Amino acid sequence: MELNRVYNFSAGPSMLPLEVLEKAQKEFVVYGNTGMSVMEMSHRSKDYEKIIFGAEATLRELMEVPDNYKILFLQGGGSTQFAMVPLNLMNKNHKADYVKTGQWSKKAIEEAKKYGQVNVVASSEDKIFSYIPELDPSKFDKDADYFYMTLNNTIYGTHIPDSLIPDTKGVPVVGDMSSNILAEKYDISKFGLIFAGAQKNLGPAGLTIAIVREDLMGNAMDITPTMLRYDIHAKNDSLYNTPPTYSIYFAGLVFEWVKAMGGVEAMQKINEEKAGILYSFLDNSSLFKGTVVPKDRSLMNVPFILPTEELNAKFIKEATAAGFVNLKGHRTVGGMRASIYNAMPVEGVKKLVDFMGKFEIENK
Amino acid sequence: MELNRVYNFSAGPSMLPLEVLEKAQKEFVVYGNTGMSVMEMSHRSKDYEKIIFGAEATLRELMEVPDNYKILFLQGGGSTQFAMVPLNLMNKNHKADYVKTGQWSKKAIEEAKKYGQVNVVASSEDKIFSYIPELDPSKFDKDADYFYMTLNNTIYGTHIPDSLIPDTKGVPVVGDMSSNILAEKYDISKFGLIFAGAQKNLGPAGLTIAIVREDLMGNAMDITPTMLRYDIHAKNDSLYNTPPTYSIYFAGLVFEWVKAMGGVEAMQKINEEKAGILYSFLDNSSLFKGTVVPKDRSLMNVPFILPTEELNAKFIKEATAAGFVNLKGHRTVGGMRASIYNAMPVEGVKKLVDFMGKFEIENK
Repeated sequence: MELNRVYNFSAGPSMLPLEVLEKAQKEFVVYGNTGMSVMEMSHRSKDYEKIIFGAEATLRELMEVPDNYKILFLQGGGSTQFAMVPLNLMNKNHKADYVKTGQWSKKAIEEAKKYGQVNVVASSEDKIFSYIPELDPSKFDKDADYFYMTLNNTIYGTHIPDSLIPDTKGVPVVGDMSSNILAEKYDISKFGLIFAGAQKNLGPAGLTIAIVREDLMGNAMDITPTMLRYDIHAKNDSLYNTPPTYSIYFAGLVFEWVKAMGGVEAMQKINEEKAGILYSFLDNSSLFKGTVVPKDRSLMNVPFILPTEELNAKFIKEATAAGFVNLKGHRTVGGMRASIYNAMPVEGVKKLVDFMGKFEIENK
Repeated sequence: MELNRVYNFSAGPSMLPLEVLEKAQKEFVVYGNTGMSVMEMSHRSKDYEKIIFGAEATLRELMEVPDNYKILFLQGGGSTQFAMVPLNLMNKNHKADYVKTGQWSKKAIEEAKKYGQVNVVASSEDKIFSYIPELDPSKFDKDADYFYMTLNNTIYGTHIPDSLIPDTKGVPVVGDMSSNILAEKYDISKFGLIFAGAQKNLGPAGLTIAIVREDLMGNAMDITPTMLRYDIHAKNDSLYNTPPTYSIYFAGLVFEWVKAMGGVEAMQKINEEKAGILYSFLDNSSLFKGTVVPKDRSLMNVPFILPTEELNAKFIKEATAAGFVNLKGHRTVGGMRASIYNAMPVEGVKKLVDFMGKFEIENK
């Protein structure tokens, strides 16, 4: 690979498209004819407005966001959303339904409990979150203020694709799309709100995207900090305060890159190809083993294990030396995890699988 | 100036040191021998830990932060701190004293009122915040949970230097240092907490620094979102969630630059020289006029006006064409404002004053 770059399988922050990095590098010190770096621009300047509103428009086009939804550029990551969602939406009956599919939904549940009643309507905790539990609408609360799901589980390697979004009979669906936004297609009109930290598929850490249906804003609890109110950011077009200006610029370049790649559907096809190569290898290996029920396998995060801790450690060490880095799995699952977000090229996955094949022969 | 760069007098985001921008540009795509951009690094990796802990250590050295204070790298800007301060500190008598010296303290006061009783113990609102009101300790509440001040007023161009920090008899002093951190010297031990958005003197927007005395943490209100608790970030060394990794790296480069310039005292001398050049010109001009009482003049933000709106507009237009940009004043003050943070070279101020001198001759 050019420039001595490694294949980075980090769960996030993670690999970014090389073309985007190179473009940003070129215009890093002086952007266009502005005489300054994007980092130095006033967020109230015409030059910067072009950047932020341009990024918004491209993302709207890519995700086919309906007109009655606002796209917000926020800060604080998914962890801040865990509080913002109940503070802003748990405002009628003060209760919400949650699907528990991993660490992130667990954290979201704990945070929501501070602000109202949480009903866990489905969970896969019994088998270390290695599958997606059945989503049975007869178990949902029709009076819930919202219905919450993590759409891709970074740690456990499962996902809930668009086809499995349940019909909640009017209860707004909230989706944590942090690790699969722009990587697989969702019909936004099925949701009341989706959010995503940028650091997996969009750009630098420190930017959070929220897409919120307009009618759900404006009824935040009185105790809500102003900066944690969706309506405040919506009314001010994400310029209520100084937003993370450079990260928004960079994400805008990534949006343009996704568009040039053919859009979200094209990205999903590439992601299915990449994941397919890895899962097919795992299914045919007598040494490596995937940890997730096949039907619920994530396109983004592929956890796998070897028969012993010694082999896991040996594999990670040799892979790192060969330029395949950040493959160590999360401590709750063990083994390895290959995160293969949009920016990971097919070539990187093919080379990893070749390497795994060699390792298998050498260690049988 | 090299590279067709302008002199950028923006109030923030604002000019960054050219040397730092060029260093960051050079290592933008591949950092050292890591095989990746800093933006692509896992925040849990050893390479990234060196960056974040290195930045912390340099800032601690520069500001002579005592051992019983934590330095936190947060998100959300000063606006989020307006809520975090009361949520975390208004925990004994549920009241606090505030000094009202401009838009930012007004916003901080409004936000704090959501969470307890706010006493405005001094204000300069009567004269459009063009001076610093007397800080008379006999008017302070000895039972206040904290005493709050904005140390530099970006919009109105006033500041409260270290010598004017009042003795609050044990009530923790909270200082908003957003626009003069690392630009003038403060004795941190006089404070319970200081905070600063990065986008004026430290680096890219989207990073907030908080320096908090350890004994003040751990008693946040129950309603406090986890991400808005200082103790959570302190216990996790600012790695509770994914921090704004690239912005922290960039701020670390700025810290190194300040150190190479001779530290905060040396920066303050340069800033006094720059501000002195501008104020001296204003005091001797028969056309331009400063708007702030001389004794309270900021070293960072210099507002000034011309006799008519037409002349203000003409000046801004001609200055922009000559490469002195973002000089338009805030709408509440009118006229012009030159923000001359650490990264503005003395040369930039000298050239601006030359330009103002020519404008004065041509428009008398």
